[in-house]
Amino acid sequence: MYGITPDNGMEKAYDLSEVAIVPTKRARDTVDVDLSWRIDAVSLDFPLIAAPMDSIMSPATVIEMGRLGGLGVLNLEGLWTRYADPSAQFDSLAKITNEIDAVQAMQRLYAEPIKAELIDQRLAEIHDAGVPFAAALSPKTVRQFAGHVEKAGADFLVITGTSVSAQYVSETRDALDMKELIHSLDVPVIVGGCVDYFTALNLMRAGAVGILVGFGGGARQATRDVLGIEVPMASAISAAAVARSDYMDESGGRYVAVIADGGITCSGDIAKALACGADAAMVGVPLARATEAPGQGYHWGREVWHPTLVRGLRQQVETLASLEEILLGPSVVADGSMNLVGALRRTLASTGYTTIKSFQKAKLILV
Amino acid sequence: MYGITPDNGMEKAYDLSEVAIVPTKRARDTVDVDLSWRIDAVSLDFPLIAAPMDSIMSPATVIEMGRLGGLGVLNLEGLWTRYADPSAQFDSLAKITNEIDAVQAMQRLYAEPIKAELIDQRLAEIHDAGVPFAAALSPKTVRQFAGHVEKAGADFLVITGTSVSAQYVSETRDALDMKELIHSLDVPVIVGGCVDYFTALNLMRAGAVGILVGFGGGARQATRDVLGIEVPMASAISAAAVARSDYMDESGGRYVAVIADGGITCSGDIAKALACGADAAMVGVPLARATEAPGQGYHWGREVWHPTLVRGLRQQVETLASLEEILLGPSVVADGSMNLVGALRRTLASTGYTTIKSFQKAKLILV
Amino acid sequence: MYGITPDNGMEKAYDLSEVAIVPTKRARDTVDVDLSWRIDAVSLDFPLIAAPMDSIMSPATVIEMGRLGGLGVLNLEGLWTRYADPSAQFDSLAKITNEIDAVQAMQRLYAEPIKAELIDQRLAEIHDAGVPFAAALSPKTVRQFAGHVEKAGADFLVITGTSVSAQYVSETRDALDMKELIHSLDVPVIVGGCVDYFTALNLMRAGAVGILVGFGGGARQATRDVLGIEVPMASAISAAAVARSDYMDESGGRYVAVIADGGITCSGDIAKALACGADAAMVGVPLARATEAPGQGYHWGREVWHPTLVRGLRQQVETLASLEEILLGPSVVADGSMNLVGALRRTLASTGYTTIKSFQKAKLILV
Amino acid sequence: MYGITPDNGMEKAYDLSEVAIVPTKRARDTVDVDLSWRIDAVSLDFPLIAAPMDSIMSPATVIEMGRLGGLGVLNLEGLWTRYADPSAQFDSLAKITNEIDAVQAMQRLYAEPIKAELIDQRLAEIHDAGVPFAAALSPKTVRQFAGHVEKAGADFLVITGTSVSAQYVSETRDALDMKELIHSLDVPVIVGGCVDYFTALNLMRAGAVGILVGFGGGARQATRDVLGIEVPMASAISAAAVARSDYMDESGGRYVAVIADGGITCSGDIAKALACGADAAMVGVPLARATEAPGQGYHWGREVWHPTLVRGLRQQVETLASLEEILLGPSVVADGSMNLVGALRRTLASTGYTTIKSFQKAKLILV
Repeated sequence: MYGITPDNGMEKAYDLSEVAIVPTKRARDTVDVDLSWRIDAVSLDFPLIAAPMDSIMSPATVIEMGRLGGLGVLNLEGLWTRYADPSAQFDSLAKITNEIDAVQAMQRLYAEPIKAELIDQRLAEIHDAGVPFAAALSPKTVRQFAGHVEKAGADFLVITGTSVSAQYVSETRDALDMKELIHSLDVPVIVGGCVDYFTALNLMRAGAVGILVGFGGGARQATRDVLGIEVPMASAISAAAVARSDYMDESGGRYVAVIADGGITCSGDIAKALACGADAAMVGVPLARATEAPGQGYHWGREVWHPTLVRGLRQQVETLASLEEILLGPSVVADGSMNLVGALRRTLASTGYTTIKSFQKAKLILV
Repeated sequence: MYGITPDNGMEKAYDLSEVAIVPTKRARDTVDVDLSWRIDAVSLDFPLIAAPMDSIMSPATVIEMGRLGGLGVLNLEGLWTRYADPSAQFDSLAKITNEIDAVQAMQRLYAEPIKAELIDQRLAEIHDAGVPFAAALSPKTVRQFAGHVEKAGADFLVITGTSVSAQYVSETRDALDMKELIHSLDVPVIVGGCVDYFTALNLMRAGAVGILVGFGGGARQATRDVLGIEVPMASAISAAAVARSDYMDESGGRYVAVIADGGITCSGDIAKALACGADAAMVGVPLARATEAPGQGYHWGREVWHPTLVRGLRQQVETLASLEEILLGPSVVADGSMNLVGALRRTLASTGYTTIKSFQKAKLILV
Repeated sequence: MYGITPDNGMEKAYDLSEVAIVPTKRARDTVDVDLSWRIDAVSLDFPLIAAPMDSIMSPATVIEMGRLGGLGVLNLEGLWTRYADPSAQFDSLAKITNEIDAVQAMQRLYAEPIKAELIDQRLAEIHDAGVPFAAALSPKTVRQFAGHVEKAGADFLVITGTSVSAQYVSETRDALDMKELIHSLDVPVIVGGCVDYFTALNLMRAGAVGILVGFGGGARQATRDVLGIEVPMASAISAAAVARSDYMDESGGRYVAVIADGGITCSGDIAKALACGADAAMVGVPLARATEAPGQGYHWGREVWHPTLVRGLRQQVETLASLEEILLGPSVVADGSMNLVGALRRTLASTGYTTIKSFQKAKLILV
Repeated sequence: MYGITPDNGMEKAYDLSEVAIVPTKRARDTVDVDLSWRIDAVSLDFPLIAAPMDSIMSPATVIEMGRLGGLGVLNLEGLWTRYADPSAQFDSLAKITNEIDAVQAMQRLYAEPIKAELIDQRLAEIHDAGVPFAAALSPKTVRQFAGHVEKAGADFLVITGTSVSAQYVSETRDALDMKELIHSLDVPVIVGGCVDYFTALNLMRAGAVGILVGFGGGARQATRDVLGIEVPMASAISAAAVARSDYMDESGGRYVAVIADGGITCSGDIAKALACGADAAMVGVPLARATEAPGQGYHWGREVWHPTLVRGLRQQVETLASLEEILLGPSVVADGSMNLVGALRRTLASTGYTTIKSFQKAKLILV
């Protein structure tokens, strides 16, 4: 009965790299494909959200992202809200090639306090551009600064953090009640990251207009090595899509957007995430290769500069083309890092779909 | 009920590298093996078709392929129908070593329009050689140029393209009705690529004498990265072979050839494709290593020079031997890149089969 | 019925790298996490035991390990009990870069007999420091020297060896009766390594206060290549945890600690081992990177210096930080090799647990 | 019903690298382990047979193999029976570093006819040494030269070839009737290679005293690439072991030895092969590293010098130690390439077995 392998009930979970889309319907014309989607009151041209990471999102690139038809998100806990002009800080980081030095330099730079007036100033600059935009805070700072996001007229507040659950219980400090918080705010909230059906459902019940599935950032290998935690995205997105459907039923029709956040490194991954059931994808690495990216050839998330438990590595990336070319093409490379939107349009056409909603039912296989 | 891994009904599909042939019958003598096969009215000595790619098929190599006992296919959308003498273009491409430069040079060279008179001239040259041959067009150009293929006396018209389905629906442009097209033509049609049972069946019903299974070319990794699409060939061929059998039943005996097109890199792959149920294999990479190959050490398909969404890479290959030696031996290497026909004959003999038709029932295992 | 693959009843066993922890509960605050555990009468601050290997454990590092809140174990068959001052031996080994030379040098150095008076002296030195500690003997020497461990006031005697079972039958020499031995001793015994349910249960019945699951050391690849033996740790730990539960039932409440011993290379592995059901983990490699480690940048177990059948390789490791920083942080790397305790605390918090006992029920998936 | 993955009945077959032995019994003392085995009338000290390959077996090494307690096999189609003194040929091959040059040189050297008088002379030399020995012929030459093997007093005739089945049907040439041949000979026959239950059973019924399971040699990757054929050894051995048992039943007690032949690269593989049910293993690579090996740092089988379809590569190996040290130790490396016999003895002891016959029931898991 009990040998070396007792049945411990472990299920196999699948990563995006373990699944593939197979065309089983007639191909459609790319000109018939409509990639637009809607989250709360906002319509967007294509289902890509830029991750709130300093290496890709400055006020300028948030604006450019919106101008092109996507959604940019400014990280309100990054260098832009700690320094009046962070150019010197970005430049100094770009000059450090040793990674341990870079970690320690970041730990110092990000120790500078966040200034409320800089938050106001950055958001005002973006708001004036007249494009849709969002701003991100972590569970730890959200109560302190959420009001500034409301006042600035952001389209969304994104609540996300290095902590892997958006819900948070503390015996010794005040716990964050997500439902109470969301209901107290005037700005629609996107929150995450969650990785299972029940957490997804709870976040939907808490009133979010969108939930992030996954842990974001470029910290996957580190999360595995340091914490032993891993989130196979294909399975996690599928679970969240089931939750979306069940919640729509129980709420009498509220549709909460499921946004894949993590492990998206090429346009093929975006297509797979949508085919697994996502409404949109939050992307990082591909945008870090833009000439406009503040990271200047480096990409990092907040897990790199944690003061006591570094859980991610600064990633070196090759600058490739303008943000517009990376998103809308034309492409001169074959690795899925350019013309992300055109590639997605082509995948839908090739597999016989003309809308994202119908494409969520595309045939997936295990490879 | 819904944890991290809801049952989303994904099936595992197998690639040729995941299967292997196991000998379970008495070995036969290689001299008893007969590799000939028939498609429509044409008998061929061995079941290999050269892919319609500029890097391997010139009028001269189409002729040589037929002379040796196989079937060559000229790409009518390649350099040979855009330039009166494309030698300079081939030479200039062979001199470019940087891949992004090569992509951009191709995008320029292939922007030159296709000339109907060059199509006539190339096909006439091949026809005069008196060997079986075929010509390839994509769904976009087939209505415009198919008549030239008919008139030239080609044995087959191959309809294939970067679009992954041979059937095509457009709301804004005229859709291609494959059945109507095939019935309107006097030349037998081979069409593809399809990857599932139903598409295969529909193409058979449309009147094709052969269907291509797979997406061809050397663009596999790119298709995965750029589009998220992947076609495990062992499963796709098996599905098409079932469709062939069902269609033979419903049509009262029409046998449509199933041709594996894609992922064939060595003679072992050819054997596996046949054992999965294919009647023949369309090959590219191994032929690009011929001294006669126009690519001069490079190999590329049409997905490399797409104007806005590059979906393949030019591949550098080492020139190895003459086309005849690559096909018929003798071999001095042990990687399955020479004596493709002799190797196939040996596989049949070793596993106890003397015809391709019987070999389609060889025992396969998952490895 | 019998083809190439008869049903031979082989079960799949899983390694730590094949499983991952998924957060499915609300995150907790790290300050609420309590990592302490108890084995027999001893309470320890965190569930890490240093492996009894010469490259990491000297009397000084055993003391430091205890001072920091863990448990150190001195190998009583190592250089410290063969040489009055082994510094010269350690220095000479650190200077040998060729691995075959190193093996042969070790075979010579470890041929020097063990001296009982050195055992007494080393243990007395540790005992005087007033921290919890343990000493290790192999089945071959345990009857000869166990009395010295008792007298020295060690908290635990660890019985472990290159032989992969702690139970031992000999027709020609005296067999070791573990039960009789354990009952004859005054010092609590931790014994291993076992890899299946029944052996685990038998060792618990023999009276051990803790059992080691796995084969320890850095000899995994070698054990596979040399002996064909392999122990997928996730399955082995799960099996032992079931045995612990069944034994607790049959013994009327005796709780025997299950200690993962082998294959632990980063903090993520520690977390996975506990989530599989372990109470603690015995670690080697990460501690070999301490500046205080006697190995001076090398790491080896007793299987390296076997006189006739070498079954392990000396491993070169990069010295990283102090033992305290490796255990308690802060961390400046993202590979799970620093702040082992902080990382474990974070994993529990992120997945919603505050004690090790509850964390043993964390959700694991196959990845 | 028929999607991309129709049920095509493919079973998973397992290679030795996919299985591992797990200890689930009490360890035994190595001195109690008895590795001797019997095949037909011959008793041998340990279950290792040297493969009949020119790179390892000369008359001298066949003798040494027997002297040490194993069984050596001279290839009667190698250089030793083509040249009166092949030293010059061996030396010239050892000087060629380019592999295509080596293939072509071998094709020339092995084109020299086999001389019956050289067969007699080599076998007489070995016979005079008074150790057990065997000689190998392929199905093509066996009728011509088998009489010489009989007369020379060899203990066994090994019939094996590049053809993957020992049974052979020809419509145009005389087919080989193995049963008739074996019954006509006075020397006991070992024959192979087979890979499935039915072929194994048929070879047993034909009268063989031992059957070879697998395709031998170092040609695995090449067989896959060139022919598409692959033999996962763990499954193949298991199937043959079932055939052995069924044949013993139907024959009223005839026990035919199952000899694993192929894919054995380290001592761990030998142990796994026996645990899968083999009685002995035929080894090549490990012996090519002996200082006495004629290959002088290279290893090759007959598939390398095939005149038209090369199906294997000459392999460069590092000369390590004497044949005696490789077989009987002591070992100074940890990769399973030395002390093959000592390692096997240790595996049995560690997993609780004292005879090969009982060890064939050791617990195997999938890893």
